[in-house]
Amino acid sequence: MRNEREERKVKVGLLGLGTVGTGVARIIAGHQEELRNQTSSQIEIAKVLVREPEKKRQIELDRNLITTRADDLLMDPEIDVIVEVMGGIHPTKQYLLKALEQGKHVVTANKDLMALHGAEILHKAREMNCDVYYEASVAGGIPILRALMDSFSSDRVTRIMGIVNGTTNYILSKMSREGAGYEEVLKEAQALGYAEADPSSDVGGLDAARKMVILSTLGFHSPVSLEDVDVQGIESVSREDIAYAKKMGYEMKLLGVAAHDQDGIEICVQPALVARSHPLASVHGVFNAVYVYGEAVGETMFYGPGAGELPTATSVVSDLVSVVKNMNLGVNGRSVVKPYREKKLKGDAQKRFKTFLRLIAADECGVLAQITRLMSDYNISLEQVLQQPRTNQKEAEIVLVTHHVSKQDLDQVLARLKEMDVIRTVKSCYRVEDGEMPQAKPDRKEEGNELIMAVNG
Amino acid sequence: MRNEREERKVKVGLLGLGTVGTGVARIIAGHQEELRNQTSSQIEIAKVLVREPEKKRQIELDRNLITTRADDLLMDPEIDVIVEVMGGIHPTKQYLLKALEQGKHVVTANKDLMALHGAEILHKAREMNCDVYYEASVAGGIPILRALMDSFSSDRVTRIMGIVNGTTNYILSKMSREGAGYEEVLKEAQALGYAEADPSSDVGGLDAARKMVILSTLGFHSPVSLEDVDVQGIESVSREDIAYAKKMGYEMKLLGVAAHDQDGIEICVQPALVARSHPLASVHGVFNAVYVYGEAVGETMFYGPGAGELPTATSVVSDLVSVVKNMNLGVNGRSVVKPYREKKLKGDAQKRFKTFLRLIAADECGVLAQITRLMSDYNISLEQVLQQPRTNQKEAEIVLVTHHVSKQDLDQVLARLKEMDVIRTVKSCYRVEDGEMPQAKPDRKEEGNELIMAVNG
Repeated sequence: MRNEREERKVKVGLLGLGTVGTGVARIIAGHQEELRNQTSSQIEIAKVLVREPEKKRQIELDRNLITTRADDLLMDPEIDVIVEVMGGIHPTKQYLLKALEQGKHVVTANKDLMALHGAEILHKAREMNCDVYYEASVAGGIPILRALMDSFSSDRVTRIMGIVNGTTNYILSKMSREGAGYEEVLKEAQALGYAEADPSSDVGGLDAARKMVILSTLGFHSPVSLEDVDVQGIESVSREDIAYAKKMGYEMKLLGVAAHDQDGIEICVQPALVARSHPLASVHGVFNAVYVYGEAVGETMFYGPGAGELPTATSVVSDLVSVVKNMNLGVNGRSVVKPYREKKLKGDAQKRFKTFLRLIAADECGVLAQITRLMSDYNISLEQVLQQPRTNQKEAEIVLVTHHVSKQDLDQVLARLKEMDVIRTVKSCYRVEDGEMPQAKPDRKEEGNELIMAVNG
Repeated sequence: MRNEREERKVKVGLLGLGTVGTGVARIIAGHQEELRNQTSSQIEIAKVLVREPEKKRQIELDRNLITTRADDLLMDPEIDVIVEVMGGIHPTKQYLLKALEQGKHVVTANKDLMALHGAEILHKAREMNCDVYYEASVAGGIPILRALMDSFSSDRVTRIMGIVNGTTNYILSKMSREGAGYEEVLKEAQALGYAEADPSSDVGGLDAARKMVILSTLGFHSPVSLEDVDVQGIESVSREDIAYAKKMGYEMKLLGVAAHDQDGIEICVQPALVARSHPLASVHGVFNAVYVYGEAVGETMFYGPGAGELPTATSVVSDLVSVVKNMNLGVNGRSVVKPYREKKLKGDAQKRFKTFLRLIAADECGVLAQITRLMSDYNISLEQVLQQPRTNQKEAEIVLVTHHVSKQDLDQVLARLKEMDVIRTVKSCYRVEDGEMPQAKPDRKEEGNELIMAVNG
């Protein structure tokens, strides 16, 4: 029943034939019926750029399609679309700019490139009336960019929270489930291929930070950049932290949080405690999820595989379908939207969140009173307190969960805690997310500041 | 920074000014900046059809916009788009067909209409080169139709499972959390406005069935209709069922299941037990979620508010934005895709699922042996068994969870169980979903059938 009359041929140049590239080639070969029905076109891979043409691969491709010279794709006038799955910043960026200059559309899965040079690439695309789609760059198989661009187009997104790194979520899930330590689980993850030999960009939070840049640029319509993200990795998360968190009703997650209110934008990536009742808390293992709060729509969450050959390739091919549909309609280049809101970042006084604090204190009378007095000096109220003696030591472990507190106040409280004679160590300090939004409380904040002045002066 | 030069005016006719209609009017009024930036157009409500023009409303609208005559909207050549939020089948269907005949685009939130007459409406739209968008008809604020149409366009969707009725999910969540009975919780839900005075279409599963028709038509590209859905409501779910389910690691949900494999399509709506580890198990209260399994992408889930003024209105306005973008590009009517696959429904022998069975049996020696012998006659293996005596009676309660079994075999086993002397009652029988897919096992199925023949003959 397919429609043969208007069938057009679309030639694709594939930059890279690694895991995702192989998946893309497989889906294009295996889902011809679906693709033809969606696009009334025949999509074919015309050329593939690889580094090692003789390498054995998981897929059989005509040897004539393989090349090691980028210009064989970029300068071939027959090729309509460049699909970039080679990764890296250089020379990838130059390749994509060159492709756009030649009037070719681009589909890319490259989060590093889009987070760092997305503005420049999209600018060139607008100039050339070309499409650039990059759904696969964030959370592999989850169509979250499309949701932000289309489905919430009429809404005002005020909060995006993401578990967008599968490696760290695998590690934290396993630590939580088995009570195991970080180093041990990391080694296992490396052995299983869930973590790379050099895991620093994953466990250090940089990978997640790049994805949060892409998400918040689209969600808040502001030109966010990587320097705007406060990044902290999971390297120092201990099994004790996780055990206490569980005891108090939370799961530990490497969480990207991007918030936007009248004070401006705040973006961070850090290990955080997510209340068990929150939908993000049940995202385990290598799965990813992005939670979006819109003023009108309220709470939504998008869940799926964050990586992997076929999930990521599915996103790439769906983007390719969009490009081909646009070609058929003659409307390429229109979906590239420029951020239209000026970027205004929050100061530390305006970043407000709940906090989990774990302290080792002298096991003597009145310690908790001293701590709570300090908290109340800063107008910080407590939601949960847990105190228990440490075995074999004249010390007590004190765990606190505060109500919303500004980062400014928190930093001062931490400094004061460290100065207190009765406090041995501030073991850990994590952000807490339980779905309750911070209230803008200008009066109380000012009051708090006055108090600080009084104390300091 | 907005672009004034090409600004076009788009006039909208609103059919209905109830909860969702009010939300639509509010979002259009309150989010003008967002709308203008997305569409380079000024969207305005030009006319509103209501039944009672003098009724007090939650929103202030110019009295001149209000009319009680549908033709004031449908025949007004100035109106570009009809937004239908009045609900019902007649005269709504006639209104929409008339609007399309006049070349107007349609955005509707009407699941009943789209489930029953979607094919006819979409046919008319194709004929007139008009858009019809209906995202809000399924799962209010969740952009699931868009995901099925665009994001998984290159994939082959094999399974869609949905918690798509907020009323029943509220009732079952509350029964589960509080150990309360169905009647009691239903009354509370009615008092709180979560259930209607006549709740039959919600609790009976019809509302969910209509949504599953829309989802499976899009996901499987086949013209599914309401008669194809096996529907069972939650009226007979007892607190005991839920208690046993919890004990064995499951949550009770009213679940829509649509599956598609080489044997064909199967669609049902029924109370089902969802394994606690499954992402659908943590969807509580009035929230909705749709789980989509694609061959390439694997497991994904979309979570959000299933109803409510603003969530539903957000979806409506996002659809409106799509229509206006299409108008600007001159490409209306292209997104209406016709199902291209013939519909092939599974027979009972091909529907395979795990099953939870609760039986009251005589508390005598060998009962469990008789039951398991019967099961093994049908080649049904058991995953969990729980037996306990009932207080004050010479009876035992036996709860079984089977591995995958065909509906055909299950029906025969149920009939045989009811005939057994030692079985007092088959209390309940529910489908179980734990994420494990049924294996097509032709050999074993045939073997099973032979056995049945032998036993029956």
